[in-house]
Amino acid sequence: MYLIRNVRLLMVGALLLFGLLGCQSLGDTTASRPLMGTGDLGLIVERATGSVLVINTTRHELLGRVEGLGDLSHASVVYSRDGRFGYVFGRDGGLSKVDLLTRTLAGRVVQSGNSIGGAISQDGRYVAVSNYEPGGVKVFDSNTLELEVEVPAVYVGEDGGPARSKTVGLVDAPGNRFVFSLFDANQIWTLDMAEDTPQIVRLEAGDAPYDALITPDGRYYIAGLFGEDGLSMLDLWHSGQGVTEILPGYGKGEQRLPVYKMPHLEGWAVADGRAFFPAVGHHQVLVANTEDWSLSDRIDVQGQPVFVMASPDNRQIWVSFAHPRNDVIQVIDSQTLEVIKTLEPGKAVLHMEYTPRGEEVWVSARDSNRVTVYNTRTLEPVAELEAEKPSGIFFTSRAHTLGL
Amino acid sequence: MYLIRNVRLLMVGALLLFGLLGCQSLGDTTASRPLMGTGDLGLIVERATGSVLVINTTRHELLGRVEGLGDLSHASVVYSRDGRFGYVFGRDGGLSKVDLLTRTLAGRVVQSGNSIGGAISQDGRYVAVSNYEPGGVKVFDSNTLELEVEVPAVYVGEDGGPARSKTVGLVDAPGNRFVFSLFDANQIWTLDMAEDTPQIVRLEAGDAPYDALITPDGRYYIAGLFGEDGLSMLDLWHSGQGVTEILPGYGKGEQRLPVYKMPHLEGWAVADGRAFFPAVGHHQVLVANTEDWSLSDRIDVQGQPVFVMASPDNRQIWVSFAHPRNDVIQVIDSQTLEVIKTLEPGKAVLHMEYTPRGEEVWVSARDSNRVTVYNTRTLEPVAELEAEKPSGIFFTSRAHTLGL
Repeated sequence: MYLIRNVRLLMVGALLLFGLLGCQSLGDTTASRPLMGTGDLGLIVERATGSVLVINTTRHELLGRVEGLGDLSHASVVYSRDGRFGYVFGRDGGLSKVDLLTRTLAGRVVQSGNSIGGAISQDGRYVAVSNYEPGGVKVFDSNTLELEVEVPAVYVGEDGGPARSKTVGLVDAPGNRFVFSLFDANQIWTLDMAEDTPQIVRLEAGDAPYDALITPDGRYYIAGLFGEDGLSMLDLWHSGQGVTEILPGYGKGEQRLPVYKMPHLEGWAVADGRAFFPAVGHHQVLVANTEDWSLSDRIDVQGQPVFVMASPDNRQIWVSFAHPRNDVIQVIDSQTLEVIKTLEPGKAVLHMEYTPRGEEVWVSARDSNRVTVYNTRTLEPVAELEAEKPSGIFFTSRAHTLGL
Repeated sequence: MYLIRNVRLLMVGALLLFGLLGCQSLGDTTASRPLMGTGDLGLIVERATGSVLVINTTRHELLGRVEGLGDLSHASVVYSRDGRFGYVFGRDGGLSKVDLLTRTLAGRVVQSGNSIGGAISQDGRYVAVSNYEPGGVKVFDSNTLELEVEVPAVYVGEDGGPARSKTVGLVDAPGNRFVFSLFDANQIWTLDMAEDTPQIVRLEAGDAPYDALITPDGRYYIAGLFGEDGLSMLDLWHSGQGVTEILPGYGKGEQRLPVYKMPHLEGWAVADGRAFFPAVGHHQVLVANTEDWSLSDRIDVQGQPVFVMASPDNRQIWVSFAHPRNDVIQVIDSQTLEVIKTLEPGKAVLHMEYTPRGEEVWVSARDSNRVTVYNTRTLEPVAELEAEKPSGIFFTSRAHTLGL
């Protein structure tokens, strides 16, 4: 009952319909499109208009706009193995496949009423989406967007009967697995797609996991908890040992501040034997020793951190913030743990993306309708691009990275 | 005297000449070339025929062959930021720029008499080559292959006069730097390309550095030493502290065995707080604790290791061997440090390359004219491709990785 393979539903029709809606606003024509590599391309989500911009990071250039992607508040993107297609997860349950070379919609399905992100399998064959409503995960063929597997997030509710949980924190893991959390059920599940029959393992976790990350080698799955001060951690190399709690009571003795925007944990950073986490309800970045996952430091910052991201060379931690202190980025030196610079890229700053080798970082300022590119060595801006209410920025190098 | 910028020489002519020699043997035509992403492409060096194969890792497919690259014994490849162009460093000093989309030579210069590898800068603007003869490093514009900077490896020789050293172990480092070693001078140099005038720093190192790696975050540059049992390490975050020696006397008390093939250090592996190195003259893989770089274990293997490579998920270490025991690969579990499988991919096996997320690994068997693809989870072969004396395998995902 939990697994339904090869459900075709009415998706082929939906695919055909939406495929025709993709359009290219910035003057592209398909006929004379020059050959180009896809390694330095990316997508910028324009949340208010349901569109994405296709950009080139070498030339700081807008290549085109693709429209018709639905509600893109809280949207995220993963990429096909070849870097040509971006899978955009919209808040409205829409899963859109964007062709970065033709700048068109290559496919689209509305697969749930409300979804919160997704992942692509290690081998690139499967795209999975974690849904709020109805709660569960759906897995699609990455080529055709046909439904392959459905995993309802069913658990035993408070009344003793079956209930369905919102699912969050979905990531890919080595061995062609997916891992995700059940917000209402306080559980972490793994879904193994490598077998003929997908296998699910269900584990008890902490109170109200709301998002999660996986470490760059795919070993540790770590979920943030909204119901308690602490994090749930699953060591996937020893998953038989179950979920453990790390950084318990990190806010002890301090007043919890209001949380206007939940941190995004896929942005958590691991650098040089230390992991940097946004505290929830505290204006701090927490530092854990990855040897034993103990709390080693707290770094005071100017607001509630949302994204906390390490540069690819592990020298800098860039932090963005929740409303109302969301017009700045703070840059932390990963060695001294000091804030070395406070940048002001514009109004409503949230999303950042490093170029793959880390020489630059792109930052969205939603209410300034602007994306600014900074040099990470000088911390000076080197380019600006116009965008309509830009939010998430996602480069194709994610195609080659576990857990992104 | 050490730096000559914008030397144009006769290279433009050479470029034009060699550009015409690129050909496509496997039936490609430029006219009807379909759009494709470059994220799942790669090159396989065919050392005897001076050619490279363009392959697709998603479909295990040969896309074409590019010929006319000169002497490709000991050849290596780096990639442009967009993943479209591979820069092939030939033993004869040839630097060839291969277009993976059109499967043609996009440029070629013979820039020295004898070279040993190269690197591309963090920002993708510069391609550097380390030369034996004349000893030094040349830096080229990655678009045009025009010479930008020349760094002769001049040092004070035994007679007190100026001498030139072979250069080896050239890698890129964060901050748009290159780092390389001087085999004859026992030195490590850094070359900073971020300034208007490139800056060189010269540091004393151990006896006869023969190759080097840089850790994935670009922090530690580690050179193997042929003149002593030990390694030279430069912490680039604290380069003012100079070069230190790690794993000193690792072969103490044991007879040094003949070395028929030097290990390749760019293949050294860092996984889960441990670094795995091939011993020189011993049938062992050495394990160092990356916390203090002390020797923590020695793993007995069946021959002189050449490449020692960690899978992207850090669970396996794959080892290839020098002649005469070079018909096998041994797979080590990174946790138990035990050899869990001995594979026999063919005759004269040396080079391996993981797919970016590590679900598969490609292995060349030179004297079997074959490349075998293994699933890293089952350790079973999943595909075979024919190739002419295949050696190095290089995927475009290297474009996004520091130090590769």
